[in-house]
Amino acid sequence: MGIGEAFQCWLLLFLLQLPFTQTVILSMPFQTAKQCTKREYFDISRMVCRPCGADQQSSSDGTSCVCLPGYKLVSNNGGPFIKCKKCPAIYSAVTQDGWSCIRCPPGAIVDNRGKCQCPMGYILVERHLNGPPLKEAQCEVCYDTAPSFSTPDFSAKLCIRCHETFINTTNSCDCQSNILTGGLCFHAHPKTLTTSVVTNIIYRENLKISSTWFASNLKASAIACLRFANLTACQALGNMCAMIMNSINIEALPNDACGLFQTIFKSTVHLGISHTVSSWRRTLPWLYYEGHTDSLAPRTFHQDPFPTVFYFKTFQRMELQFIIAKYNAQGSFLDWEKVTGGTLQLCPDTVTKLNAAYIFGITYQQQCTLLVSKLLSDYADIQFYDLYMLYKGEDGEEKLHPIAVRNLNFQYNGHFVNQGNTENNWRFTRRIFLVDTLSGREINLKNEPKVIRVANSIKIRVNLVPNTLQGNIFPPTLIVSYKSIKIQDPDQQSVAISFSVEYEMDLSAAYQNTQIALGFLCGLSVIYSVLKTASWRRRIGYRMIDVPTILKFLLFYAGDLANAFFVVLFGTGLYWLIFFKGQRIASVFLPTPSQEGHFIACVISAFVLKFLQLLHQLGIQLTMDIFFIDWERPKGKIIKSVAGGGDIKTAPAPVSIWRTYFVANEWNNIQTIRKTNPIFQIIAVIFFLKVVGFENLTSMDPYSQLKRTAESDVVPSSRILRFGMASTIWLTIGLIQMVFCTAIYERFVEDRISQFIDVCSISNISVMIFSHRCFGYYIHGRSVHGHADTNMEEMNLNLKREAENLCSQRGLIPNTDIETFEIFITNKIREKYDKIREPLHWRNESDRLLNQTSDLFECRMKAYNTTNKFLSSFIDHAIRDMDYIVQDKLLLEKLIGMELHEPMDKTIFYNDEKLSFTEVLYYGNESTLLTFDTLFFCIVDLAAQSFIFAAFLTYIQQKVIQFIRLAAGRKNLVAKTLVDERFLL
Amino acid sequence: MGIGEAFQCWLLLFLLQLPFTQTVILSMPFQTAKQCTKREYFDISRMVCRPCGADQQSSSDGTSCVCLPGYKLVSNNGGPFIKCKKCPAIYSAVTQDGWSCIRCPPGAIVDNRGKCQCPMGYILVERHLNGPPLKEAQCEVCYDTAPSFSTPDFSAKLCIRCHETFINTTNSCDCQSNILTGGLCFHAHPKTLTTSVVTNIIYRENLKISSTWFASNLKASAIACLRFANLTACQALGNMCAMIMNSINIEALPNDACGLFQTIFKSTVHLGISHTVSSWRRTLPWLYYEGHTDSLAPRTFHQDPFPTVFYFKTFQRMELQFIIAKYNAQGSFLDWEKVTGGTLQLCPDTVTKLNAAYIFGITYQQQCTLLVSKLLSDYADIQFYDLYMLYKGEDGEEKLHPIAVRNLNFQYNGHFVNQGNTENNWRFTRRIFLVDTLSGREINLKNEPKVIRVANSIKIRVNLVPNTLQGNIFPPTLIVSYKSIKIQDPDQQSVAISFSVEYEMDLSAAYQNTQIALGFLCGLSVIYSVLKTASWRRRIGYRMIDVPTILKFLLFYAGDLANAFFVVLFGTGLYWLIFFKGQRIASVFLPTPSQEGHFIACVISAFVLKFLQLLHQLGIQLTMDIFFIDWERPKGKIIKSVAGGGDIKTAPAPVSIWRTYFVANEWNNIQTIRKTNPIFQIIAVIFFLKVVGFENLTSMDPYSQLKRTAESDVVPSSRILRFGMASTIWLTIGLIQMVFCTAIYERFVEDRISQFIDVCSISNISVMIFSHRCFGYYIHGRSVHGHADTNMEEMNLNLKREAENLCSQRGLIPNTDIETFEIFITNKIREKYDKIREPLHWRNESDRLLNQTSDLFECRMKAYNTTNKFLSSFIDHAIRDMDYIVQDKLLLEKLIGMELHEPMDKTIFYNDEKLSFTEVLYYGNESTLLTFDTLFFCIVDLAAQSFIFAAFLTYIQQKVIQFIRLAAGRKNLVAKTLVDERFLL
Repeated sequence: MGIGEAFQCWLLLFLLQLPFTQTVILSMPFQTAKQCTKREYFDISRMVCRPCGADQQSSSDGTSCVCLPGYKLVSNNGGPFIKCKKCPAIYSAVTQDGWSCIRCPPGAIVDNRGKCQCPMGYILVERHLNGPPLKEAQCEVCYDTAPSFSTPDFSAKLCIRCHETFINTTNSCDCQSNILTGGLCFHAHPKTLTTSVVTNIIYRENLKISSTWFASNLKASAIACLRFANLTACQALGNMCAMIMNSINIEALPNDACGLFQTIFKSTVHLGISHTVSSWRRTLPWLYYEGHTDSLAPRTFHQDPFPTVFYFKTFQRMELQFIIAKYNAQGSFLDWEKVTGGTLQLCPDTVTKLNAAYIFGITYQQQCTLLVSKLLSDYADIQFYDLYMLYKGEDGEEKLHPIAVRNLNFQYNGHFVNQGNTENNWRFTRRIFLVDTLSGREINLKNEPKVIRVANSIKIRVNLVPNTLQGNIFPPTLIVSYKSIKIQDPDQQSVAISFSVEYEMDLSAAYQNTQIALGFLCGLSVIYSVLKTASWRRRIGYRMIDVPTILKFLLFYAGDLANAFFVVLFGTGLYWLIFFKGQRIASVFLPTPSQEGHFIACVISAFVLKFLQLLHQLGIQLTMDIFFIDWERPKGKIIKSVAGGGDIKTAPAPVSIWRTYFVANEWNNIQTIRKTNPIFQIIAVIFFLKVVGFENLTSMDPYSQLKRTAESDVVPSSRILRFGMASTIWLTIGLIQMVFCTAIYERFVEDRISQFIDVCSISNISVMIFSHRCFGYYIHGRSVHGHADTNMEEMNLNLKREAENLCSQRGLIPNTDIETFEIFITNKIREKYDKIREPLHWRNESDRLLNQTSDLFECRMKAYNTTNKFLSSFIDHAIRDMDYIVQDKLLLEKLIGMELHEPMDKTIFYNDEKLSFTEVLYYGNESTLLTFDTLFFCIVDLAAQSFIFAAFLTYIQQKVIQFIRLAAGRKNLVAKTLVDERFLL
Repeated sequence: MGIGEAFQCWLLLFLLQLPFTQTVILSMPFQTAKQCTKREYFDISRMVCRPCGADQQSSSDGTSCVCLPGYKLVSNNGGPFIKCKKCPAIYSAVTQDGWSCIRCPPGAIVDNRGKCQCPMGYILVERHLNGPPLKEAQCEVCYDTAPSFSTPDFSAKLCIRCHETFINTTNSCDCQSNILTGGLCFHAHPKTLTTSVVTNIIYRENLKISSTWFASNLKASAIACLRFANLTACQALGNMCAMIMNSINIEALPNDACGLFQTIFKSTVHLGISHTVSSWRRTLPWLYYEGHTDSLAPRTFHQDPFPTVFYFKTFQRMELQFIIAKYNAQGSFLDWEKVTGGTLQLCPDTVTKLNAAYIFGITYQQQCTLLVSKLLSDYADIQFYDLYMLYKGEDGEEKLHPIAVRNLNFQYNGHFVNQGNTENNWRFTRRIFLVDTLSGREINLKNEPKVIRVANSIKIRVNLVPNTLQGNIFPPTLIVSYKSIKIQDPDQQSVAISFSVEYEMDLSAAYQNTQIALGFLCGLSVIYSVLKTASWRRRIGYRMIDVPTILKFLLFYAGDLANAFFVVLFGTGLYWLIFFKGQRIASVFLPTPSQEGHFIACVISAFVLKFLQLLHQLGIQLTMDIFFIDWERPKGKIIKSVAGGGDIKTAPAPVSIWRTYFVANEWNNIQTIRKTNPIFQIIAVIFFLKVVGFENLTSMDPYSQLKRTAESDVVPSSRILRFGMASTIWLTIGLIQMVFCTAIYERFVEDRISQFIDVCSISNISVMIFSHRCFGYYIHGRSVHGHADTNMEEMNLNLKREAENLCSQRGLIPNTDIETFEIFITNKIREKYDKIREPLHWRNESDRLLNQTSDLFECRMKAYNTTNKFLSSFIDHAIRDMDYIVQDKLLLEKLIGMELHEPMDKTIFYNDEKLSFTEVLYYGNESTLLTFDTLFFCIVDLAAQSFIFAAFLTYIQQKVIQFIRLAAGRKNLVAKTLVDERFLL
């Protein structure tokens, strides 16, 4: 910061010292053509308003000058430099080209531009046929009767033939008392169409517009369509029906666009149908599927699959080739257009992203908010689309399949039937539009619309054929919903737009399989838990089935159930990962977010159960009983010369407690070591997910690329895939770490557990652990040298001798080297043990008062010494009625984890080369810890959708649990072994 | 996996069992209007080709039928259902409206539609003026002489007045022998314009096109511009000059568009200039700045700042308001358009992203690849832009400032002057276009162009006024480069497009300041390193300046220099972070990537130097001398009863070595503990950068948002900001951890260092450490109880007594409790010490042979015992000529880290309550380790631009160095203290 401030100060000083020689930069006023007055033009070279010459005013676009009304041009070289001259009073008007003065004929008027204007039905003639100008313009009438049938053209300069309908109806160009609508003339024909049609549009409640477009075109289109089968008119009628959301009221059948369409449809049965579609009249546009009886209606349960085989190849992606037939509002067919980029998508974006929507198999989501003003300018012309899918038929020819539209705003007899979930009620339609800025115009078609309708949500849904392995899909459907926007302030109003493509498949079979697997595993779990509970009851030496037994069973069951859940979840995740990402021919689609609920619930259950199991295991570890048996005996008696005289007094040489401290400290230190390094685990997982890029495989597209692509933004990621990917990577790295730890690290670098056993041996200290009342572990640490409490010289000598194999072996039984045992003690021993150690459990004064004999401290020391003596005697076979035998475990016992023989009078020591005592440490519970961490990581990620955040929380969780385990474990160690806490570092 | 496979199998079974009742889905052939034959029309209702009726053929758009030539319409109700009838031979032609048969007049021909066509200059008349049809059509000539001046109109139905230039030139509508070009007629005027103009365009070498547009318009525009000052013609000429990149050849001045422009510019001096710009002729477009003499030319060194004050507010972002004047190719002014979204950007993207380009202060980069076919369809009409910047003047009115364009393709006398870096040679222009699809058309303007030119790179560069603190900028400049693309296969050809906005400031002052700071700190470093070297020389007890001294100086200097660099770098990073992100009024812009090179070089230097320092410190730690002094004396002699008789033999009771093992093990364990938890450090840094989102503050925009916004994609991140942000967060978390560690964790949870000292005291063991030959540390661990080698009962009693303050204090000097000292021993002691410990350095047989006295093992044991005796005697003041005094360090000594007094005859013990002995551990070198980690993290991030990858590598680096430190430290401990490696767990 210091340097930054210095710099700022320095700058300030510099600034103050140096007065700028300020010359103002070039600037021009900002003027537009609209700012110029009537007598000014906008100079396009200099970009300013300049006065026009005398007798001139600005032209309509403002960039040049024209002569005032009544003035004729004398010179015009382009641009503003023209000259004008007043016309003489007798020729007071100017010709249309502006270069001559002319007299207007009687009956004509001079308009505001100073030019002659004839009455309606007349043409203006200013020149002879061959070009010579007239002195006085003429207004000529166009004869509208036979054989002329003429009417003035648009510019009123020529007589041209009037429209055929006039001639047909009245045999003249005057419609007389017939129906004149939309520029056409029809016979008033009482049978076919009533005289009044509904031209109001109800956009939503309280939003009703009297539509000018409908008023001027609906009736004409309907009549022309019905009477003359005019294709364009029929399309225009269809468009108007689409504009009112295809809504029909079959019962009332009002004369609105759709009602008229239905009426015409019914009365033109004789024309036949198109392409075997019964609801597609030959001359009419196809607007409706016929309801639930229509075999074409796209319901999954009675639909036929699409003949194309869809596959995934990375080098060339297969596309859903949609194609639209475009019509303008008037009903003219514009052209076919392949659906790409922004054809159906209102949100602008890069072409790559927009086109990703139509790559087969890629779930696509895109949304944005658009300003209404932008919609108004970009979609001034409404276009109507009939959507088809293009595919290659068996004969190699390109074929079309019509795509059904489920318009959520469609009303059937006044009900929004398509919004519900009842598939049977859905009614599909055909024609869509994106933005309707036409129907909402009132009074004049050039006015701004009062209401616009926007397709604010378009969703293409693709369903896989159930049980297909051959890449068959049902024809996609399009789900559209419209929003009506009342125009108030287009620059401030905005509308949220979304476009998505969804791929679905029927997952009931998959669910069923999951359920079966889960059920099977749950059954296994029950058996396994019962076994465990039975084993537990034997080990604690009780026989009754009581409430604690049931609780214990539930705790065991929680653990096993968690494992069952996890196996199924992991399998499911991996299944989707492999089969969805690995498929070459489309055979599975991912569950959609709404189908994932079941899965998420399972993950949560698994996590909760696993957490229970973890707590249970921690509880066992934190309450186990442990004692360090010191084998060292005093080397003899010490001679103490009494100060006062020459007497020799002796006292037993004290056995140093430091070896016990050393071993206890080491035991304390190996409490939370694990086979996997949890930190490396987290960092490696994040490395693979984020840096290598496995995270990108969780996107809902069947292509497997590790790099983030341009499309990644619009392809959401699947929660099942996230779970599958995260758990796979987590478990894989965990397993690799475990293999590395046991096969390489512990063999070649360091093995803390073996080191501990080694230290026990060297220090002449055995460890007795009771994880259950009558069951536990024994580490035989009796020194082969008989004593270890000595100076460095002797210690080093001893170590050297052992290294050179000059000593006996370390095992409990002579000439063996098995130092670790599982022990199953008799009730008698346990009772004796408990009795000896009773003072250790006295905590407070009341306990102390009960036992009035002596000081608590002394009692406890005594208990310690007695325990030491008792246990070492026991191991030494020195207590007659408490002997033990050493044996191997049976294979069956190993398999079911339960001892078959109960120690009746002799305690049993089982040889245990697998170091089962680590079960009271983190070390022996790696699998539980690893799956718990996996579940924790995944569940945080599912909630937060962020692997990094999940990693962070997992780290915190590990640290917290480890801290609790360490602190509580230390307290337990202090309480059980009387080693002062200060020596447990 | 099992479940997945099972599921797949199950599906397959299901599939085989269930034969589908396959009904083919609805499919239609895909036909387009183009596929229909001449006698078919495209049925827009049924989407198929249908045959037209008799005597009919398809219309030009293919969607309806028309009568064959020679057939007249009888009925037409719209759409295809028309009826035709053959015209009688006498009236063999059809009228223009198609409803009647007519006879063509002599001289007229019947065209391929069966209609009459008159010769050039004639109009076709089919009806009387009032509408009645004629039996025979008439071809009437338009009289082109006065007063008619008429010519047929576009449809050849009426005579209208011909163009003024004809009348002016020849007083008729025939140009005769005058110059007829571009539809205009000019006098052949020898003085003003030569007869031939260059209409070929050389796009690049070997790519020359004879441009139709130039051929038909260049000459006409030039003449109209020169003779009539026709504004539109002048603009059209300017556009053509812009199309050939404004390239001029002042010496030759050929008659190409720019040459003609220059000629006209020179010959219209009398018309004056616009807006005081001398190179802006009043009637001409402004194309050129006048070269290096022009006071408007936008070179930073003599430009005036923009009057607007630019500031940054988050709630309303200030924009660079560009505005363009748009012209079409013909020279008409279209309108002003504010530059937003895709106005200048060819790459499509979301509006938010595109608009981010014009938010002031945001560095913007956007690139994409576009298909040539898309350019051809989207930019069929070329538009020309004059770019201005819009701003509010002092009077509150909107003003314009023209933006200068540096066109990299501009050639001045044949040289690409704008491509070089010589600012003096640059020549700025004005008019740009994005895509030119017009000039490359040959023969006919409706042909596809043979070459298009695309503005493939547009860069807007904004320069800050030097030393401004008031938000002043120089007017931006636009740098454009064009690419010519020869059209071969538009659907396959693509072109890379880029658009960027850069903000620059003159950084020379900042550099200077950095240099000054760096120089100052380097100077300090030299002094500090000299001091350190002097101190080192005293401590090792030598006096000469030799090569090792110089090496040592260089090593110290590396460390100090690294610190100096780091301080400056960190200051710079923080400076930019604070001043760039925190500024409210624009006062600094970030260094651009090219300006960052200096900074990166500094980071690398700092890292390398820091690494040297770290190695140096590790080297010191791994070679230091250590000894554990055991104060325990045998408690007496042990009575050994000899087996054979009743004699009493005595031997000194051995002192247990286990306390030494305990202390050594603990010493080994605290080697790499740190004040900060490096794992938490990494994870917390990643959490703050990635999850909280501080990473998003490194983007090159002056707005500080933590969330990733829609614009983030197009705003690159700055390497300096990345460094600043990463180092700030790393150091902050590190400092917080250190404070937490010393103030809370060590006080309330556990303090491993104090525990170690405590254990020393309890175990009656002192630690003597020599980091230098004559300098080291002493931890006084003499038990206050006199002995510690005893059983648990006594230990616990002792601990209890001490807790109840029943003992004396632990300090070296009676009644003090200072247990840690720095020691500065005399040469004599060191020599003695070395002599005693000589056997420890005997490693191999040759050493052993040299000293023939005894077994190596025994020698070393003896050396151990002697050392123990010697040191304990020394501490006990028991050696007369090797006494010591205890004193406090002087303040000055503490400050400069060097002892002023050398021990001449008495060793000096300095009280050291700050636990300086931790300097031989990781613990005492936290600052070095922290800065090294910071630099490592930052340097990896700068290289890989990924914080996660940097975190991963930092973790690996920490683990590797820690592993080496631990393993080597253990070896050293074993070598120096003779404690067996097995006890260092």
